[in-house]
Amino acid sequence: MTSANLSDALFRPGSIALVGASGDENKHASLPHQYLRRHGYGGEIFPINANRDSVFGERAYKSIDQIGKPVDHAFIMLPTQGVVDAVTDCCRAGVRCATILSNGFAESGGSGRDRQRELVDMARDGGMRLLGPNSLGIINLPDRIALSANEILSLPELKAGRYSLISQSGSLIGAVLSRGQERGLGFAKMVSVGNEADLGVAEIGEMLIDDPATDAIMLFLETVRNPAGLASMARRAFGAGKPVIAFRVGRSEVGEKLAASHTGAIIGNGAAMDAFLRDIGVIRVETLDAFLEIGPLVKGRQPPSGRRVTVMSTTGGGGTLVIDAMSRHDVEIVSPSESAVRNLAEQGITISRTPLVDLTLAGTNPRTYGAVLRELMASPDCDLVVPIVGSSSQFRPDRAVFPITCAVKHDPAKPVAVFLTPHAEASLSMLSEAEVAAFRTPESCADAIRAYFDWRAPRTILPAGVPNGIAQMLATAQGGSLDAKAAGEIFARLGVPMASERILPADMSAIDQMPLADMTYPAVAKILSQDIAHKTEVGGVVVGCADEAALKAACRLILASVRKAAPDARLSGIQVQPMLRGIGEALLGYGLDPTVGPVVTLGVGGVLTEIYRDVSVRIAPVDVDEARRMIAEVRGFAPLRGYRGMELGDLEALASAIAAFSQLAFFDVEEAEINPVLICRQGDGVVALDALLIKGGRRDEV
Amino acid sequence: MTSANLSDALFRPGSIALVGASGDENKHASLPHQYLRRHGYGGEIFPINANRDSVFGERAYKSIDQIGKPVDHAFIMLPTQGVVDAVTDCCRAGVRCATILSNGFAESGGSGRDRQRELVDMARDGGMRLLGPNSLGIINLPDRIALSANEILSLPELKAGRYSLISQSGSLIGAVLSRGQERGLGFAKMVSVGNEADLGVAEIGEMLIDDPATDAIMLFLETVRNPAGLASMARRAFGAGKPVIAFRVGRSEVGEKLAASHTGAIIGNGAAMDAFLRDIGVIRVETLDAFLEIGPLVKGRQPPSGRRVTVMSTTGGGGTLVIDAMSRHDVEIVSPSESAVRNLAEQGITISRTPLVDLTLAGTNPRTYGAVLRELMASPDCDLVVPIVGSSSQFRPDRAVFPITCAVKHDPAKPVAVFLTPHAEASLSMLSEAEVAAFRTPESCADAIRAYFDWRAPRTILPAGVPNGIAQMLATAQGGSLDAKAAGEIFARLGVPMASERILPADMSAIDQMPLADMTYPAVAKILSQDIAHKTEVGGVVVGCADEAALKAACRLILASVRKAAPDARLSGIQVQPMLRGIGEALLGYGLDPTVGPVVTLGVGGVLTEIYRDVSVRIAPVDVDEARRMIAEVRGFAPLRGYRGMELGDLEALASAIAAFSQLAFFDVEEAEINPVLICRQGDGVVALDALLIKGGRRDEV
Repeated sequence: MTSANLSDALFRPGSIALVGASGDENKHASLPHQYLRRHGYGGEIFPINANRDSVFGERAYKSIDQIGKPVDHAFIMLPTQGVVDAVTDCCRAGVRCATILSNGFAESGGSGRDRQRELVDMARDGGMRLLGPNSLGIINLPDRIALSANEILSLPELKAGRYSLISQSGSLIGAVLSRGQERGLGFAKMVSVGNEADLGVAEIGEMLIDDPATDAIMLFLETVRNPAGLASMARRAFGAGKPVIAFRVGRSEVGEKLAASHTGAIIGNGAAMDAFLRDIGVIRVETLDAFLEIGPLVKGRQPPSGRRVTVMSTTGGGGTLVIDAMSRHDVEIVSPSESAVRNLAEQGITISRTPLVDLTLAGTNPRTYGAVLRELMASPDCDLVVPIVGSSSQFRPDRAVFPITCAVKHDPAKPVAVFLTPHAEASLSMLSEAEVAAFRTPESCADAIRAYFDWRAPRTILPAGVPNGIAQMLATAQGGSLDAKAAGEIFARLGVPMASERILPADMSAIDQMPLADMTYPAVAKILSQDIAHKTEVGGVVVGCADEAALKAACRLILASVRKAAPDARLSGIQVQPMLRGIGEALLGYGLDPTVGPVVTLGVGGVLTEIYRDVSVRIAPVDVDEARRMIAEVRGFAPLRGYRGMELGDLEALASAIAAFSQLAFFDVEEAEINPVLICRQGDGVVALDALLIKGGRRDEV
Repeated sequence: MTSANLSDALFRPGSIALVGASGDENKHASLPHQYLRRHGYGGEIFPINANRDSVFGERAYKSIDQIGKPVDHAFIMLPTQGVVDAVTDCCRAGVRCATILSNGFAESGGSGRDRQRELVDMARDGGMRLLGPNSLGIINLPDRIALSANEILSLPELKAGRYSLISQSGSLIGAVLSRGQERGLGFAKMVSVGNEADLGVAEIGEMLIDDPATDAIMLFLETVRNPAGLASMARRAFGAGKPVIAFRVGRSEVGEKLAASHTGAIIGNGAAMDAFLRDIGVIRVETLDAFLEIGPLVKGRQPPSGRRVTVMSTTGGGGTLVIDAMSRHDVEIVSPSESAVRNLAEQGITISRTPLVDLTLAGTNPRTYGAVLRELMASPDCDLVVPIVGSSSQFRPDRAVFPITCAVKHDPAKPVAVFLTPHAEASLSMLSEAEVAAFRTPESCADAIRAYFDWRAPRTILPAGVPNGIAQMLATAQGGSLDAKAAGEIFARLGVPMASERILPADMSAIDQMPLADMTYPAVAKILSQDIAHKTEVGGVVVGCADEAALKAACRLILASVRKAAPDARLSGIQVQPMLRGIGEALLGYGLDPTVGPVVTLGVGGVLTEIYRDVSVRIAPVDVDEARRMIAEVRGFAPLRGYRGMELGDLEALASAIAAFSQLAFFDVEEAEINPVLICRQGDGVVALDALLIKGGRRDEV
């Protein structure tokens, strides 16, 4: 079946079999039939019910093979145990696709998982595609096909629109549809994917990219079952100019497994997933209202380059509400430009150069409000305008709401996010009709603006310039977990500056024989022993050795002190490193997220990084540019950025080290960490002081 | 005028003069007249208009003294320049109070401020009280008195309720009223206080405490003009069982001045204000929806002792939404107790012991839903229950919404917060009628739950047990800014453990003469010089002096090194302290917030505390209990609380030190800081290593 054929059978079936249909209006299994007819389905409906001859006046069939006509789509509502047989029957009857409402499959664990596998095998063998199980069905609004048991379909009218929703929660479709209706927000297609046993978010998203009725794709995600598919769908959607908007909730599987490792504990739940979604160009909202309302702000647009907002309002209080909500996000609120103020003055309109352009009373008329808005929108010094309207929006939309629609029509390119202070459905609908993003709460307005500003084009990852020999080094290294020396050599080959070090034997007579003049001085000497956790407490560390003689004296002192303080400890040598003067430290982590795969993590290191969860996470690898953005995201690096006049750290060198380290993603590595990377003064570089690497179990290598 | 008389004149005037009334329906100044009549005002209205004989069919007067009858309340809508004369006229005519809509006073700065002062002086002299200027007026819903120019009054019907709102933004009253109407939420009195030139939030709040129609007081705050008044109002309201709910927005004046000082930069905007509001027993929400919706959750209740929530839902997706939103706050989500599961099993109802009790499909009927809810509510193992209802709430409130109202009626004491997934006004109204808190978004539901859990009884501050002699020490100390020694003596007297130290002269021959055997060894010696910023870099520090001889040798070394490295530095001595082994540090700050007064701040110290704004702030002083809560709020102390098995710090000793330090509030101190307080192992105490104190300018002392 081609994708177009499948899309037709799924969204625009000419005939539908309702398997397990009930004629009892109070039964759940009667709802799809009622809803299909209520909302104007024009195709054939075949109720399948072993005990009835007709259902709601239409002929019923004992089984699907009795129909004797082609069936595009079967909707299966049977108790769990009857579903496998029904799917077998459908396959035999040549049904093209089936939506399974029934539950009791993978979501219930154990034998349900086996039952689901059986279902999928059966359908594959029979050439039929499945939606669900545990799916509430499909609603195709423009074509008036309401193939769902979602009680929201009791609504008499369904407003169609240009946004389509794919949801892992069936009931969320009801919530979105119901709330949208009240607001004048219409939808194109709404799909409850249930357990995604066969058709999933990615494949349905691909169909929506090809759907001329869909302008943007909304995803309600509780997890990601097919990250590669989702990534390629999102990339293609971006290329096609159809924004993908996600509302991700719940403790996803992501990070739960990782939580066992140190890096995972830092990342916490969902951070890897969020990094993944951003990486593939998905826009992520954090509030339910913004999910509904953000559409017109991103539709037909590209990711923005700045984060500057100007706010205008017919009410000071309304302006304060939105500014206050935005102040919780990384948004820059800017005053109107000098030229905007001058241009308005020429029209006899006086506005102040303050972050809130307050038009209380005087400005609540179409001429003033419209002129100010158009002027602010025309300014290249702000990236988005927030027009706020007070009470007039409820009773007199002509005063300020209508001028907004005109200004947007006149200059549709400039992003605008409207907030109305009262409950004003008619104005919200008017704005929605005019494709203007309008928000019901200051918080959703601020969240949508943040989400828009955070939007990025999908990132391309190319294995260009990866150094040779790494796979070889990994293959020949002993054991799964490499020691600091072996791991350090791999990191050094990748391009991470490693601290030069030399291991002297734990034998003074041998050391005395060695020429040590060519080392970098001053140096630090540390005992190496698997039995000694706190080196300093046994006299195992001497700092500031100025030359060869001092180093040898230090080694003598160390061996004597340690042998006295820890006579049973096995000594493997003395580690000698140059003394380095860092002004900061970083922790670099690498791991395989069970869902989204290779992830690189950056923090300032130390226990506080964990406590504050102050880390930046990306899908690995990253290039130097992306690494710079990671550094910028970590608040704890503020001192190295010159906070309060502090000394600047070499963050450029850190960015290069991150990019180099992240190339581990091209190899079979399960986990890696450098803790710490010492950061020196600007221009003096960075150097890794430690290294850890755990090999993966792959066989194929780059 | 007694408070009851004033309250009558303000909220229930028998006669109203509309000064500047217009008969032109399109003019703003015509609105109060129209609204009063539309909403059923039964008293006399006297329009004052120099150019008309009648306005809307009622006799108009040239001036207020022509009325010849007593006027309870004048509503002044004149242009700025006419207001002072109008107030004079009102006073002369014996009007009891006046609301001033006009603007152009203190809010416009400069001469506006003088004009406002003139207004207030005039009214005081004339025995008249003022609301405003810049007030949108008063709405008394149960008595049907709509004395306001707020266009929201175009609404045909106004639902009365038991919540009263005092707002510093006039337009916010419109937003709240309009949004409430749509939700079935009614209000008692709504007051726009404008510039609070005379009557302010506190005094009107006091009237509402005495108002039998008001059960809870809502405050929309952009600043606090009378903190002492607000505090005493809030305390009395708490005692009277009327919760005070605040939505505070905007960059208040708070912290802006403080931002100059180190402590202020850490606190940031509004933190002192939030600490103040919590201290006086005010409930603070952070979202507009929660402000509207939280009422029934707190009305008639006391602050809770736990933070445990159980969630039940007819839809998994809806449950996930709320749990996800709550996970951003400090809320504990708990599974049903074993006994709840057993009791339900006895009724033939099976629920799982998971944080989300999912009743999808099977449980969406009154019997099951009601039984589960009642059982969860009965459990002493949770402090609040969140019942969630899916699509059925829009069309079939009988199924799950009605059972909620019954369960709450049956057990009104247990807090319940409802979330409905679709747009379901009828159900929201039904819940509102039944006094059940119901929320429109998962985010507002979570915010209200957090606000309820954060609610605290007003804190009592008593100057009990303040040590003697501090005022004396302050008075005799030289200069405004005390040096570490003088400040340290004051802190020590307050009860803060200070590091014992001894200052030796910067003169080796003198040191050699001194007996130093009775000091605590090992000790650390540090050069003291106002000219040396980095002591270690000039050889100015020697650690680990084991005995008197070693200390003297160290002093010799220090003086020699420093004189060589910094020959021009003025040396004031050598500071000798015992070597202390701390496992953590704290920063303690004290300052006078320009609005709320003495504030004590606690953080872990260091630049990261500032960057992460990880501080706890309280109005000073605090007792040891409150200090413990401050410590618990600082995330950065997690290591000292045993995070990842780390050594426990002596946080009890820290709490005592905070309480002692915070008693600075009883004295004339402008700013103080201890940075750092060294925290030793549990049982080993804490010790302040530094001290700073700036005296205030007060004359009267404790």
